[in-house]
Amino acid sequence: MGSDDKIVDVNFESLLRIFTVPEAPDSTLGNIEQKLSQNLNEFLREHIVAEEKPLSEIEKDFSDAAIPEIPSFVSEHTQHLLDTVVSHSVHTSAPSFIGHMTSALPYFLMPLSKIMIALNQNLVKIETSKAFTPLERQVLGMLHRLIYGENDTFYQQWMHSAEHSLGAFCSGGTIANITALWVARNNALKADGQFQGVEKEGLFNAMMHYGYKGMAILVSERGHYSLKKAADVLGIGQHSLISVKTDDQNRICPTSLEQTIRDLKAQNIKPFAIIGVAGTTETGNIDPLDSIADIAEREQCHFHVDAAWGGATLMSNNYRHLLKGIERADSVTIDAHKQLYIPMGAGMVLFKDPSAMKSIEHHAEYILRKGSKDLGAHTLEGSRSGMAMLVYSSMHIISRPGYELLIDQSIEKAQYFADLIEQQPDFELISKPELCILTYRYVPASTQQALALASATEKAEIHQYLNELTTFIQKSQRENGRSFVSRTRLTPKKWDRMETNVFRVVLANPLTGKDILHSVIEEQRVIAQSSPVLLPKIKALTEKILQS
Amino acid sequence: MGSDDKIVDVNFESLLRIFTVPEAPDSTLGNIEQKLSQNLNEFLREHIVAEEKPLSEIEKDFSDAAIPEIPSFVSEHTQHLLDTVVSHSVHTSAPSFIGHMTSALPYFLMPLSKIMIALNQNLVKIETSKAFTPLERQVLGMLHRLIYGENDTFYQQWMHSAEHSLGAFCSGGTIANITALWVARNNALKADGQFQGVEKEGLFNAMMHYGYKGMAILVSERGHYSLKKAADVLGIGQHSLISVKTDDQNRICPTSLEQTIRDLKAQNIKPFAIIGVAGTTETGNIDPLDSIADIAEREQCHFHVDAAWGGATLMSNNYRHLLKGIERADSVTIDAHKQLYIPMGAGMVLFKDPSAMKSIEHHAEYILRKGSKDLGAHTLEGSRSGMAMLVYSSMHIISRPGYELLIDQSIEKAQYFADLIEQQPDFELISKPELCILTYRYVPASTQQALALASATEKAEIHQYLNELTTFIQKSQRENGRSFVSRTRLTPKKWDRMETNVFRVVLANPLTGKDILHSVIEEQRVIAQSSPVLLPKIKALTEKILQS
Repeated sequence: MGSDDKIVDVNFESLLRIFTVPEAPDSTLGNIEQKLSQNLNEFLREHIVAEEKPLSEIEKDFSDAAIPEIPSFVSEHTQHLLDTVVSHSVHTSAPSFIGHMTSALPYFLMPLSKIMIALNQNLVKIETSKAFTPLERQVLGMLHRLIYGENDTFYQQWMHSAEHSLGAFCSGGTIANITALWVARNNALKADGQFQGVEKEGLFNAMMHYGYKGMAILVSERGHYSLKKAADVLGIGQHSLISVKTDDQNRICPTSLEQTIRDLKAQNIKPFAIIGVAGTTETGNIDPLDSIADIAEREQCHFHVDAAWGGATLMSNNYRHLLKGIERADSVTIDAHKQLYIPMGAGMVLFKDPSAMKSIEHHAEYILRKGSKDLGAHTLEGSRSGMAMLVYSSMHIISRPGYELLIDQSIEKAQYFADLIEQQPDFELISKPELCILTYRYVPASTQQALALASATEKAEIHQYLNELTTFIQKSQRENGRSFVSRTRLTPKKWDRMETNVFRVVLANPLTGKDILHSVIEEQRVIAQSSPVLLPKIKALTEKILQS
Repeated sequence: MGSDDKIVDVNFESLLRIFTVPEAPDSTLGNIEQKLSQNLNEFLREHIVAEEKPLSEIEKDFSDAAIPEIPSFVSEHTQHLLDTVVSHSVHTSAPSFIGHMTSALPYFLMPLSKIMIALNQNLVKIETSKAFTPLERQVLGMLHRLIYGENDTFYQQWMHSAEHSLGAFCSGGTIANITALWVARNNALKADGQFQGVEKEGLFNAMMHYGYKGMAILVSERGHYSLKKAADVLGIGQHSLISVKTDDQNRICPTSLEQTIRDLKAQNIKPFAIIGVAGTTETGNIDPLDSIADIAEREQCHFHVDAAWGGATLMSNNYRHLLKGIERADSVTIDAHKQLYIPMGAGMVLFKDPSAMKSIEHHAEYILRKGSKDLGAHTLEGSRSGMAMLVYSSMHIISRPGYELLIDQSIEKAQYFADLIEQQPDFELISKPELCILTYRYVPASTQQALALASATEKAEIHQYLNELTTFIQKSQRENGRSFVSRTRLTPKKWDRMETNVFRVVLANPLTGKDILHSVIEEQRVIAQSSPVLLPKIKALTEKILQS
């Protein structure tokens, strides 16, 4: 008998069994695990219900706030999980689900994850992580080298230095961005004469000492929402995250950036960080990093690049030029759980200067003693798992050229899909893919003609209906459950910066074939044409314009 | 043939195999997984090298910053992991490793973790997590109810409300504490007249508006180091984290707390948060929460309880009275990866008032739209994994009475160990266990007599050697690899607040038997007696004092 058993009568001896007796291979849980190992996609296809159940219905299964007084059998509970949780989870790895930044994962990561979890290391300190500490430092070194390409001597000197840090591993891009801006803020308001530094005395004293009226972080209007959160947490204030205009390819305008900096300085506001985006979340575009670097250098600003999405492109010798200038950044965010195909929870921030993180270093008595190599001295988080091991293994098993192939095929697939959309008379490409993200919408061919002739008022009216139609199509497609694209709102120059709802597609899943791209479009067309109210309204307006 | 194969020639077709062809059950990785499933402890015992290898040696295996240009076979790499990583990791679940806050994990969590990772949900938004969102909300509801015990109507009303939040799931206690203090700061400096709130305008404007000279967070001198980090990140400054004196049981002195608040207010510094500790990291003591609640109410301060360690005690109807007053806290931190026996990466912060988190709420265009139930609107982190599922399952499988047993036996085992130490003539108990943590040290019986007679100078000298001896014993024991206790430095009242190195023991692992406790002491005694320099010095001093 395995531990696939209830803790009968809740006595300590039977309770101990769950710590000592493994699940029997023929138990419910053992069976599931085996199925999952044998064919993950089949397992997910079988168990995830395709058609969407309303959230309010799902919530009914999760409505009891009482912690159960009676233990469940492991087998019973496993069945319950299959019925209520797995069945209504999202099939993030499905090849036809091309609206998320999640993808299929390499198979070897499943058993490796289990090893990682079974080892249950805590990377905050050597004492609870031993080999995992140098392993994580090596992973940070690898990413650092990918970005900055320093020589071997550099990494020999700094990678394992107790007093230095090439970066921090963290749960995701948000924490990575906050960490980068935390370091930037503390370096901008560092100890000076009597003033002991913002980390000790706080922002109010820092501003008084330096005589600034405000601090500012600059980023394009396409910057990730986490930056607003960072500005709030760090005490700078969301208003001090200054949006800079973008061009018609969603890239920051360097001249606007310069003008904004001049304006801020005229008000005695200190622009202490400029952020370049390498792969905007909505359209996958990359800021002109070299131009930003020039400006940041001149203004002595911290230059951070949010490459949470696009950073993995550096793996490709064919496309890494798209990120030219990233090697001049003071810090870079990369999410391994995005285009490095690692499970959720693997963010990183890298710093060019191995001493940069000094400004956020912290120590304690029983942990992170000075001179120790404890990773926790330089992380925002405390206790952390050994996720770095999964990045380490993927680097070795997939290798750089393997990642190059994955990146290249994603970019080329997006180009293919963009061409495909442009060939359709009733679809409109809104943002061309620079990486593997693109946006588009459904617009009947005749309506496209009408829009070219329409007055501003007519345009606005049609736009309003098209926005509703886009939402309708996207929601219906999601509810059908066969395929999924996401939705966002852009302000394309072509449409006079009117708010435009668009389908957003992310083509990072290597299992997404061209046939799927064709059928996604076909399904959207069918849904659009079945729209009971919106399409007739759009058609009527179109007729009116074309006839006048 | 499984995918236990190299990506030969790195072409796309062979690369696809790692996404489509599972590891064969008879592959190296398949075999390891099976062994791990059959007997985790045996696997770890077999593969983790007992004797400690110097870190500098281990680092040699992790010294190359270059991302490999040539892919490794999965089997080859797995063997490499066993040899270099697993073998030199820390056996955190070993019953004789009683110095960490990690423990053995219930078996069922291993396969469940694999399911969680294979599903790869992203809990930042419904769109990528569906059923996981209500599941996580329910888990937060369960913990909220455990602390605050509101009635069913309360949970029906708030648990799944889009505009509200009972708390946040996060990677660990540090992020939980930062989140609580972030909320507290924003509520203390909220919008008022022309002022739009600290979240928008930042700390400098906030202080100008409210006319404060500073902000302060108060916590006992035994508060966790993460609070210092929080004060830094939030722009308050580490100096504004004010340490309050503790009594001889490491508990905050309410009268000192009141005096400190008076002093701060006299300087026009706003004490906006008081933190009670429920389970200090070093000694497991619990602050008088009710007394703190009285003071916080009177002063209109946010009252936060850091129960990262001790919160799970609420599961025991026999011991939950130790945390009396926690139900009056505005927010509470609990780590499920500590005494709820979940793998690393499961922290939570709960808020009494479902509207408290409004002050840190954020929205974006394509995500976290207003009115959505996206969890990301109220978390410091962005993308997050479905760890909450493991808590959910443990609540059901272990159940409240099961957790009660686990908590009770930990506390009682610690009491047993404390008694055992007091029975030894050559050991000294430094902190009595209130929960399952205690500290002690080795002091020869005759030296204990001598210390009672010694002058202040002599005491200090002996103490110095005893400190070195404690360090020596702890390090030697760790290097031997049979058992492990941790080490910290306290300032016990009994020893005139002199800095005193102590062994720290955490008895949360249900597999730790009484025989192990006996042998830990025996091993420490043997090491002490073999000390080539320190013990002879201590003995000589002892003789001198006893003879005079």
